[in-house]
Amino acid sequence: MKKGIAHYTLGETFDHYLLIKSAVKGVASNNKPFLTLLLTDTTGEIDAKLWESTPEDESLFQQGELVKVQGEVGQFRNKPQLKIQSIRPSQPTDGVQATDFIEKAPVNKEDLMERLTEAIFDMENPTIQRITKHFLKHYQKDLLSYPAAVRNHHEYVSGLAHHIVSMLNIAKELTILYPDINKDLLYAGIILHDLGKIKELSTATSPSYTLEGKLIGHIPLMVEEIRAVADELQIKGEEVTILQHMILSHHGRSEWGSPKPPLVREAELLHQIDMMDAGLNMLNRSLQKVGPGEFTERIYAMDQRSFYKPTFED
Amino acid sequence: MKKGIAHYTLGETFDHYLLIKSAVKGVASNNKPFLTLLLTDTTGEIDAKLWESTPEDESLFQQGELVKVQGEVGQFRNKPQLKIQSIRPSQPTDGVQATDFIEKAPVNKEDLMERLTEAIFDMENPTIQRITKHFLKHYQKDLLSYPAAVRNHHEYVSGLAHHIVSMLNIAKELTILYPDINKDLLYAGIILHDLGKIKELSTATSPSYTLEGKLIGHIPLMVEEIRAVADELQIKGEEVTILQHMILSHHGRSEWGSPKPPLVREAELLHQIDMMDAGLNMLNRSLQKVGPGEFTERIYAMDQRSFYKPTFED
Amino acid sequence: MKKGIAHYTLGETFDHYLLIKSAVKGVASNNKPFLTLLLTDTTGEIDAKLWESTPEDESLFQQGELVKVQGEVGQFRNKPQLKIQSIRPSQPTDGVQATDFIEKAPVNKEDLMERLTEAIFDMENPTIQRITKHFLKHYQKDLLSYPAAVRNHHEYVSGLAHHIVSMLNIAKELTILYPDINKDLLYAGIILHDLGKIKELSTATSPSYTLEGKLIGHIPLMVEEIRAVADELQIKGEEVTILQHMILSHHGRSEWGSPKPPLVREAELLHQIDMMDAGLNMLNRSLQKVGPGEFTERIYAMDQRSFYKPTFED
Amino acid sequence: MKKGIAHYTLGETFDHYLLIKSAVKGVASNNKPFLTLLLTDTTGEIDAKLWESTPEDESLFQQGELVKVQGEVGQFRNKPQLKIQSIRPSQPTDGVQATDFIEKAPVNKEDLMERLTEAIFDMENPTIQRITKHFLKHYQKDLLSYPAAVRNHHEYVSGLAHHIVSMLNIAKELTILYPDINKDLLYAGIILHDLGKIKELSTATSPSYTLEGKLIGHIPLMVEEIRAVADELQIKGEEVTILQHMILSHHGRSEWGSPKPPLVREAELLHQIDMMDAGLNMLNRSLQKVGPGEFTERIYAMDQRSFYKPTFED
Amino acid sequence: MKKGIAHYTLGETFDHYLLIKSAVKGVASNNKPFLTLLLTDTTGEIDAKLWESTPEDESLFQQGELVKVQGEVGQFRNKPQLKIQSIRPSQPTDGVQATDFIEKAPVNKEDLMERLTEAIFDMENPTIQRITKHFLKHYQKDLLSYPAAVRNHHEYVSGLAHHIVSMLNIAKELTILYPDINKDLLYAGIILHDLGKIKELSTATSPSYTLEGKLIGHIPLMVEEIRAVADELQIKGEEVTILQHMILSHHGRSEWGSPKPPLVREAELLHQIDMMDAGLNMLNRSLQKVGPGEFTERIYAMDQRSFYKPTFED
Amino acid sequence: MKKGIAHYTLGETFDHYLLIKSAVKGVASNNKPFLTLLLTDTTGEIDAKLWESTPEDESLFQQGELVKVQGEVGQFRNKPQLKIQSIRPSQPTDGVQATDFIEKAPVNKEDLMERLTEAIFDMENPTIQRITKHFLKHYQKDLLSYPAAVRNHHEYVSGLAHHIVSMLNIAKELTILYPDINKDLLYAGIILHDLGKIKELSTATSPSYTLEGKLIGHIPLMVEEIRAVADELQIKGEEVTILQHMILSHHGRSEWGSPKPPLVREAELLHQIDMMDAGLNMLNRSLQKVGPGEFTERIYAMDQRSFYKPTFED
Repeated sequence: MKKGIAHYTLGETFDHYLLIKSAVKGVASNNKPFLTLLLTDTTGEIDAKLWESTPEDESLFQQGELVKVQGEVGQFRNKPQLKIQSIRPSQPTDGVQATDFIEKAPVNKEDLMERLTEAIFDMENPTIQRITKHFLKHYQKDLLSYPAAVRNHHEYVSGLAHHIVSMLNIAKELTILYPDINKDLLYAGIILHDLGKIKELSTATSPSYTLEGKLIGHIPLMVEEIRAVADELQIKGEEVTILQHMILSHHGRSEWGSPKPPLVREAELLHQIDMMDAGLNMLNRSLQKVGPGEFTERIYAMDQRSFYKPTFED
Repeated sequence: MKKGIAHYTLGETFDHYLLIKSAVKGVASNNKPFLTLLLTDTTGEIDAKLWESTPEDESLFQQGELVKVQGEVGQFRNKPQLKIQSIRPSQPTDGVQATDFIEKAPVNKEDLMERLTEAIFDMENPTIQRITKHFLKHYQKDLLSYPAAVRNHHEYVSGLAHHIVSMLNIAKELTILYPDINKDLLYAGIILHDLGKIKELSTATSPSYTLEGKLIGHIPLMVEEIRAVADELQIKGEEVTILQHMILSHHGRSEWGSPKPPLVREAELLHQIDMMDAGLNMLNRSLQKVGPGEFTERIYAMDQRSFYKPTFED
Repeated sequence: MKKGIAHYTLGETFDHYLLIKSAVKGVASNNKPFLTLLLTDTTGEIDAKLWESTPEDESLFQQGELVKVQGEVGQFRNKPQLKIQSIRPSQPTDGVQATDFIEKAPVNKEDLMERLTEAIFDMENPTIQRITKHFLKHYQKDLLSYPAAVRNHHEYVSGLAHHIVSMLNIAKELTILYPDINKDLLYAGIILHDLGKIKELSTATSPSYTLEGKLIGHIPLMVEEIRAVADELQIKGEEVTILQHMILSHHGRSEWGSPKPPLVREAELLHQIDMMDAGLNMLNRSLQKVGPGEFTERIYAMDQRSFYKPTFED
Repeated sequence: MKKGIAHYTLGETFDHYLLIKSAVKGVASNNKPFLTLLLTDTTGEIDAKLWESTPEDESLFQQGELVKVQGEVGQFRNKPQLKIQSIRPSQPTDGVQATDFIEKAPVNKEDLMERLTEAIFDMENPTIQRITKHFLKHYQKDLLSYPAAVRNHHEYVSGLAHHIVSMLNIAKELTILYPDINKDLLYAGIILHDLGKIKELSTATSPSYTLEGKLIGHIPLMVEEIRAVADELQIKGEEVTILQHMILSHHGRSEWGSPKPPLVREAELLHQIDMMDAGLNMLNRSLQKVGPGEFTERIYAMDQRSFYKPTFED
Repeated sequence: MKKGIAHYTLGETFDHYLLIKSAVKGVASNNKPFLTLLLTDTTGEIDAKLWESTPEDESLFQQGELVKVQGEVGQFRNKPQLKIQSIRPSQPTDGVQATDFIEKAPVNKEDLMERLTEAIFDMENPTIQRITKHFLKHYQKDLLSYPAAVRNHHEYVSGLAHHIVSMLNIAKELTILYPDINKDLLYAGIILHDLGKIKELSTATSPSYTLEGKLIGHIPLMVEEIRAVADELQIKGEEVTILQHMILSHHGRSEWGSPKPPLVREAELLHQIDMMDAGLNMLNRSLQKVGPGEFTERIYAMDQRSFYKPTFED
Repeated sequence: MKKGIAHYTLGETFDHYLLIKSAVKGVASNNKPFLTLLLTDTTGEIDAKLWESTPEDESLFQQGELVKVQGEVGQFRNKPQLKIQSIRPSQPTDGVQATDFIEKAPVNKEDLMERLTEAIFDMENPTIQRITKHFLKHYQKDLLSYPAAVRNHHEYVSGLAHHIVSMLNIAKELTILYPDINKDLLYAGIILHDLGKIKELSTATSPSYTLEGKLIGHIPLMVEEIRAVADELQIKGEEVTILQHMILSHHGRSEWGSPKPPLVREAELLHQIDMMDAGLNMLNRSLQKVGPGEFTERIYAMDQRSFYKPTFED
């Protein structure tokens, strides 16, 4: 197996497949067009310039395309840059596919699905169970492939399901330690809380915000979706209102996008578990990139803090 | 016509009908039960004590009942208090009805309805018109009788429609002064923006918050209602999203309950017109209660400010 | 067993032991002195007046004394009030003791101690283990009897140890679900985080703030204590600094009393687990006092929110 | 008529007049001086470099000068840049003047003046009328040419008067819809509210902040000016105080520069109408630059929001 | 000399002169009128009731009147209350005057005036000196008798001059320690900074806010006054602007009433010295009321803090 | 004496000693390594490039080294840049030393030490005196050489002692003007307040944050140090707690790093004097760099304000 792009050093020659994450056209000082490509595999990404690009180049080398590139790893403004010597689109016969070049959750879809199914199976309240099951069935494919966010935490393929399943694991232990907790509500809240992202974001693999995402947002989109599903299933009753409340309030405060703060115990817990799993996902991934005695890069979604890895951790 | 309760002075005898706004049972220092009644007509309200109340009294004299009371206007802790000498429920033959004792909008329902219909008639975009018309038809009765709020502004019968119609009047002039404004969007936003209050509040005449009102709130309730109506009318298209956005954003900022700020021109205007009409309603009614050279009571919803009425205003 | 004071109703006669929670001298309108006593058992508390109190009464009936009272349960300003007919200090021969009248953790001290010992036993880093063990040994008696706070959460005898042990239970599960977590650091942080309260508060059973508590606060008091213990044990090394940082940052933000935010993964987790267990303690105890379909009293330390108990919870 | 600078594309040759908006001297890597010019006409602006500039060039090509330029439109860092081939100051015989190259209000000065005069004519309170008339007469020339601000809204020649007149139009309709409003106060407040900008800013056509503008600001400058005018006209009475209050409070809150919030109804309205007209001016001009289905650039003075233009707007 | 009202204890008989600080009419439960008087001397104040008051009583016993009262010191709701047995207005022949019953600065007016004159004499810049001298001459009487505020700090007769002189003393030392400071500017700023209070407050001995005080406030009132004086003295030049800026900015931040923050060194110092002297005045007077080892009452204007007096201070 | 680096102009040749403030290795576009040096003397600093640097160069030219450089002063991106023609480490025989190239306090160490000793000599409370004397003795060398901060104010050699001595001078005058102030507490607080910086920062001449500095901070570090010293000296008593409180609270508010606000008079004064001296240090040094009629650069630690120097200051 070839080593990833992140592991090349200055002066080495790269000759392998990469995925185009973005392609932007520019005009050079000689007034000739060129393409700035951001190329990626699961280990990292690198900038590359394709000078004097033709209109054909522009149509071939677009975001989402998989290409075979040969070039030398140089440097520009202290960042590595690939000097392209040759580049071509990948062929079916190359036996590579785009999804192999995108970061994915460290758990596979089957295991994630099994854990989701198990959580629904554990529910006792038939109304809550029925609504949750309906959503799982309806959104199964997207739920198992969408990221949990465009950036910050679980921002990889299957990140949404990975986040949900990690939260379910925490929830399961809490319901044992604190038996007053209503397990059904908490599980349902966890499974449903971010499903609105499927409408908020355009695609699973290169997500951007949809118009509905920008103007309504995933929280109200999911609140209305629960109402629609309840109407469709002809379900009435307080369970529907409580589930809607849990989605609505899961960001915790109005400044963070929840027009109502959590007013039900399980809604409060949902918010806390969400923060805890998102935080651990960001922290663990940032800390893995530094050595003992070092500080991480600033983590944007954690108040821009830079965390320290103690020297006594090997 | 009898003078209202607000115009009685210390020592006068009252003998007329009043509406029970609230009734609370207490226990006196002699361990005997008594009822504390808050009695009201359109001019104001007064506290009253019914000492040594019987269980029958408790069942007769409840919130919402209209009663004939005779008693002397006394004083307790610097507030007027009615010393009840006799009290009985009103009879059908008395020819009085509860709604005559509740504050109402200064415009009648027919005129309000006519103005609403006219605004919808003026719309040109058929989708927006159809959705708005559907809501007007569906909620007509409640829309014409609900207050716009439990307190603060337009907190009287038909206050919701009065607020909407006043806003439509401002909007009409603005669309003439600034022709870029999309009249259809602005009118529809105004008519729909607070309809969720019909679900948020229990009744038109003595409103309290429903469970849905407390846990979801009128804004998300209306956003989901627009989706449901669009589904029912089989309407698709950006108009639905934009209308939902206008409702969602009309409080202006997340801290005030709008998870998205206005991101469409007419949404921004809707927010400003809402503030302007609510402000004028509060200001005018507060200033009418004081004379030139005086300050009003503090107005809670306007940052607790106390406003000055210049002496050169007669 | 006698029923508790909270279960008496208007007009019943009480004749049993109660603990004096506070005693305040006043002067009646007849210029004669009287005592206002706040009497308590584990079910609740009641106000009582001892009219025309003598100097001997004042010296007998002080905060912390256990008394035998006989009187009728009456009412004053809508709150129950005990009309004392006779009162005397309890005798050794009465076979009652003050601690039976104070709320306690629902787990006994032996079990709490066992769980603390077990957590320390599980540690692998000898430095962290040694420091933690030293504190447990040194503060064992107070740690097992102090409350976790004067009010809000775990505000009962052994509340501090109960809070620590509940947090350890959450932490144990998290270290299994997220193996990157440094268990030793997290356990030590949990055990030590609030030990400074033993210096901040005067006594375990009727705690008030000490001068050190008011001017320094439990967080800096504990930070300096760790330094002192490390000096005493002649321990040097980063572990000491990291443990101090965890204590210092466990309130999460400077506005909440932590001059540094958490900058180590386990410090962040400590903060989150602290909030989670404190929240569940408050929520569960508030919700147990209301029935399905009701809202709790406002919970001061949770942004004054009032929480709803769904009707479908029996 | 020649096309404006904004409509030239890469590679085209420009040969026409432009106004120098700013001129900054620099030193090139060859240690030779050069001038960076920002050139503008009413359609937009473009950067230009005059290499190896002479001291004579520096004295000729200064801010505010009108020049004839010939050069090719190139690009530098993704922004258009004019490569100057020849440049000379404009001559009187060229028949062009600087004011033709600056953005102006879409209404001419005569119409603006007429509307201002009409508003003053409509006033009934002689004191308010006299003060306002005095200001209009005294500042007429500057009032009709100054912008309303250096940037954000109405930042063009005659912008101040345009803003005032637009606000008067809204005010006129509001006084009809809400007859309680004191028309004289509101009109006077609108006409006077931003006159202090004439002292705050240096000139009408290329305004910068004066020392008084920086250290005192337009609000206190205008408050003192009203006092001075009242003294000069030997006017005493509450009208002067109320007018000063309206100027003082028109930014609405202390954080926004008003040491007192509006405490008179018309002061509150003045603030709201000011926000409404400023907002519509910014929104309409930003939305005109984008097509249906697009978002505008972020609007700095509206909380950095980017607004959406619906696709159903043609 | 008689002991002051603050030193009487329960049951003692008072028979001496007191000043009426406020007089409010009420109606008793027997429907008879009574007066609630707040009586004061320099040591403190006491509530008193004059039952069954006559219209003559109401006209005799008004705010600001000096009365001879005889009565017993009793108690109502834990506060002392004087039971009036006899009361009469003071006579000229009594040889007492209202000003002897009001708290005054601990320095006499002559000394205060001397220090003010000296500071002006020390100035070197003739413009600054002339303006300051004009104000001192014009406002001399009020400046020497007004308090610095209605409450919080220096809230006693001559408090304004006392505050100014204390600040001048600090300033004098600072100009020696830091010779860069412009002494003239700093002295003038200190003398003028709060003179606007003379217009903001109604009278020196029982101050309330004037209409100008409420709607404009002392800061803008003084800024315009400096302009008027400069006009009158026909002074032009930057000194006037800088002095206005110092007044305008002396509250330090817009939220505290200064539309511009200090932007001149001496303006910043003026703000700091103002805070320092006001703080020490509040702190010293609060700490003098408590013994070593005690905390003061909460000081409102210092963030509601309660300060500790160490036990090692005798 | 040679002129300083700040006084060279474009094109001049520099040939003298400079101190390396930082040295960073880079890779040029030709893939060859180079060093970017920041060179400094007491007048200012300049960037320099050493192209095609050898491994030997990298080991010779490190931060803190004194070098003899010859080169031409050029320009890069509008900032001066030294084009190195020759460079060599300084020799002992050159008779220059690093400390001559670093900014120092304008008072020498002997005078600073004398003033510190005098302040301690003036103390009357033996406990406070003993603790302060111990710290002065223990930290004397570092105290006299450390800066008061890495940037903002007194950021030069001996800045810490200079700051302390300036504060002592202000304090001395205040204790004369306000005799209630406890001089001993105030002097001790001033001398100790920032000593924690010696642990927070790595070295006196090129300070960076230590791990303890980052994770604990100078305030808690000094609080624990006082405890340790008191233990060592076997001192008990309230003085220790009060001194710890003064250090803890000297930043004034929790948001600024003080978990307790000042709750003792001298703690409040310490905070105010600290702000005053730091402010004057920043203001005076910034104003000395501009001429009359100009504004200073924005001062970061004073809310980014830019201050004005009046034209009437020569």
